[in-house]
Amino acid sequence: MEFAGRDIVSIRDFSREEIDHVLEMTDVVEPMAKKGSHTLDGKIMATLFFEPSTRTRLSFESAMYRYGGKCLGFAEPKIASVEKGENLADTVRVVESYADVLVIRHPLEGAARLAAEFASVPVINAGTGAEEHPTQAMLDLYTMRKELGKIDGLNIVLAGDLRYGRTVHSLAYALSLYDINLHLVSPPLLKMKKEVLEEVKGRIKVHELEDLSKVIPEADVIYMTRIQKERFGSLEDYEKVRGSYILTADDLSPAKPGMIVMHPLPRVDEIANSVDDTPHSKYFKQVWYGLLVRMSLIGLVLGALS
Amino acid sequence: MEFAGRDIVSIRDFSREEIDHVLEMTDVVEPMAKKGSHTLDGKIMATLFFEPSTRTRLSFESAMYRYGGKCLGFAEPKIASVEKGENLADTVRVVESYADVLVIRHPLEGAARLAAEFASVPVINAGTGAEEHPTQAMLDLYTMRKELGKIDGLNIVLAGDLRYGRTVHSLAYALSLYDINLHLVSPPLLKMKKEVLEEVKGRIKVHELEDLSKVIPEADVIYMTRIQKERFGSLEDYEKVRGSYILTADDLSPAKPGMIVMHPLPRVDEIANSVDDTPHSKYFKQVWYGLLVRMSLIGLVLGALS
Amino acid sequence: MEFAGRDIVSIRDFSREEIDHVLEMTDVVEPMAKKGSHTLDGKIMATLFFEPSTRTRLSFESAMYRYGGKCLGFAEPKIASVEKGENLADTVRVVESYADVLVIRHPLEGAARLAAEFASVPVINAGTGAEEHPTQAMLDLYTMRKELGKIDGLNIVLAGDLRYGRTVHSLAYALSLYDINLHLVSPPLLKMKKEVLEEVKGRIKVHELEDLSKVIPEADVIYMTRIQKERFGSLEDYEKVRGSYILTADDLSPAKPGMIVMHPLPRVDEIANSVDDTPHSKYFKQVWYGLLVRMSLIGLVLGALS
Repeated sequence: MEFAGRDIVSIRDFSREEIDHVLEMTDVVEPMAKKGSHTLDGKIMATLFFEPSTRTRLSFESAMYRYGGKCLGFAEPKIASVEKGENLADTVRVVESYADVLVIRHPLEGAARLAAEFASVPVINAGTGAEEHPTQAMLDLYTMRKELGKIDGLNIVLAGDLRYGRTVHSLAYALSLYDINLHLVSPPLLKMKKEVLEEVKGRIKVHELEDLSKVIPEADVIYMTRIQKERFGSLEDYEKVRGSYILTADDLSPAKPGMIVMHPLPRVDEIANSVDDTPHSKYFKQVWYGLLVRMSLIGLVLGALS
Repeated sequence: MEFAGRDIVSIRDFSREEIDHVLEMTDVVEPMAKKGSHTLDGKIMATLFFEPSTRTRLSFESAMYRYGGKCLGFAEPKIASVEKGENLADTVRVVESYADVLVIRHPLEGAARLAAEFASVPVINAGTGAEEHPTQAMLDLYTMRKELGKIDGLNIVLAGDLRYGRTVHSLAYALSLYDINLHLVSPPLLKMKKEVLEEVKGRIKVHELEDLSKVIPEADVIYMTRIQKERFGSLEDYEKVRGSYILTADDLSPAKPGMIVMHPLPRVDEIANSVDDTPHSKYFKQVWYGLLVRMSLIGLVLGALS
Repeated sequence: MEFAGRDIVSIRDFSREEIDHVLEMTDVVEPMAKKGSHTLDGKIMATLFFEPSTRTRLSFESAMYRYGGKCLGFAEPKIASVEKGENLADTVRVVESYADVLVIRHPLEGAARLAAEFASVPVINAGTGAEEHPTQAMLDLYTMRKELGKIDGLNIVLAGDLRYGRTVHSLAYALSLYDINLHLVSPPLLKMKKEVLEEVKGRIKVHELEDLSKVIPEADVIYMTRIQKERFGSLEDYEKVRGSYILTADDLSPAKPGMIVMHPLPRVDEIANSVDDTPHSKYFKQVWYGLLVRMSLIGLVLGALS
């Protein structure tokens, strides 16, 4: 399995074997993350953030620093030379002189793919358009694997906005490579996007429902996402469904002891603070796992891991 | 005296003995600051600046770099994920996965205290609300100690806006732990805040006056601060007092030879350029001492000094 | 030739011998740029960007990182303490406590010179006002030397906006130190600035013309620059000349095989994409050479090269 020099553009570019390899290498980098490492001494990562995402940017930077490398880049498209009218292909061909790996975040679908075509160094997609955020999907899988020992056989609930949420699309696709039961819980208006649903249904058992409480007793994973007011026609419609997609500690009393609650963060109010102190809460741990998965990917594409 | 793992939230959390220990350790780090050090190799500092303060941010970053560590963070609240509605407690619980120490600047009083409660790594307050800026108070003390050999016994003048100025409140409190004479010079409208005044008066001799020139001959330290136009009811009122709180080289002719002029910077016009070339001027040296004090604090809370 | 501690403010401060020395040292740093180096371990560069220039900032930062040093700074004047009314002289006297070399970009002519006067550490001008951008001129020379073996004897074409373009003024001056033929191609409205033209004419042969195609067969270097719509009185006037200053692969068919096309970047449409795949295209390579020249200058002023 050759990762050196490879681009990480879409979760769909990876087989289950390849994803499993990334997750195994994530176990390998954990001690380096804790103690620090000089492995990537002399290597530079450029973060090209054409839309803001402080959390994701800091995760990549911390991953690179813990690995011994250095970081540069921009996080404000307005001050980037892009403002002078430069196109992405030129920006990439300039920045590749400054760095050994490019991490790109962009509002437009396809931007990472285009960057990867023009760059002679590896490109990692840190979120583009409404669909692709492959490192998020991988860190979600890693969290399940690490906290529950394996992914196969799990009852996994995705809840909230399944229609517009970027992370749940990549995640549903990635999960369909494993032997799991997928429970999709959302208000009718925010049901899983049809294309994703059909693709996933071809591979694994999928149950769609509206009532989150019904699925809590059997769930191994509840993955919450935020429901945005703006998606609804009226404030009334929003208020009607909103309460059912707020998870509290009380809601979790029928849950299995080992069930884990996940969230891509930032949350607004869809997980009550009362959940934070339960043993189910794993969304802050997910942040740490995200750092590790990004170290693993950086190490792989730069040839420090194989 | 145990500093490892400790938060630096308020100057009021520290005894005189503890502050003296920070200042002693500052002498210890000076050679490392000059030659560079690998002591904190592998350690990461996150700067969470929810309001801009380039000077303070660069001081902390340079301190961390000279110590061998690395830095990441944000300085623009608008692009931070905070914008998506995330609360400070969540931000802190995310960023602690990325860094070994958090440095926080925030417009709201109490923000650093809250961050410290939620973070499992040490938090250093780099200025919050209108009151707390503990590292500034410590660097002010260090400047006096370094330039004048000791703090006890000094005649110390705080001049300018003593009512709204953040640094003078923390500094007056910190000075009250030493055996000094405090001279508070301000227009009536900008007299030292009552609560601070009363607390300090219980411990040391305090003289309030309006005329800066009267106290120059006996002063060992003149600490100038800026008077902001906006504090006055009318431009006339402002213009009336303004001139008396502008220090020139001529004003300093009756001063003791060893008297030092300090300023938290940036200045506008309250210290004339003519003072820069006199031996009294220490405000740029203060910048260097600030770097050293921050190295000392970082080293202490990360357990590199004890 | 002593460079340690020297400021790099204007290309006019350097003799041909000194520039040649910078270019020779650039050859020396290339292997370090490729493999990384610890030479500047413990050294810090501050980038003070009072106007945005992501490309130039990243070039300097990558140069410093590849050399083993560290970087800090700001790129948004609005959040710099400058906003509080601080003057440049004070900013410089503060930041010199944080760094071993200052890199400054400023909208005003003379800002780098002023900074250099106040700073006790070396200052490198990364572009000030409408005239000075000495590191750009040096990297342009290095590109010619590296790609064509030498500068003396070349037929060099500067095309496009020669009146307002910052880079072409410094470059024309620098080229006049060599024994070359200079061809200045522009619409009448955008002819080379008179002062520059007269100075340069005193030293080398200069041909002014309007038709780019006429000079392509004999050119060794075609240096394209952008023509800005805003320079013209009417859109009609602009549209009339615009087409003649867009270079396509077809236009290059009469060119010598070894002729190189250069551009300071970012380009808009003055070099068609079809040129990118021809062997003439060197504008992305120029980016890499720019990084090397900046490493060379940083090494020289910090005394790591001599």
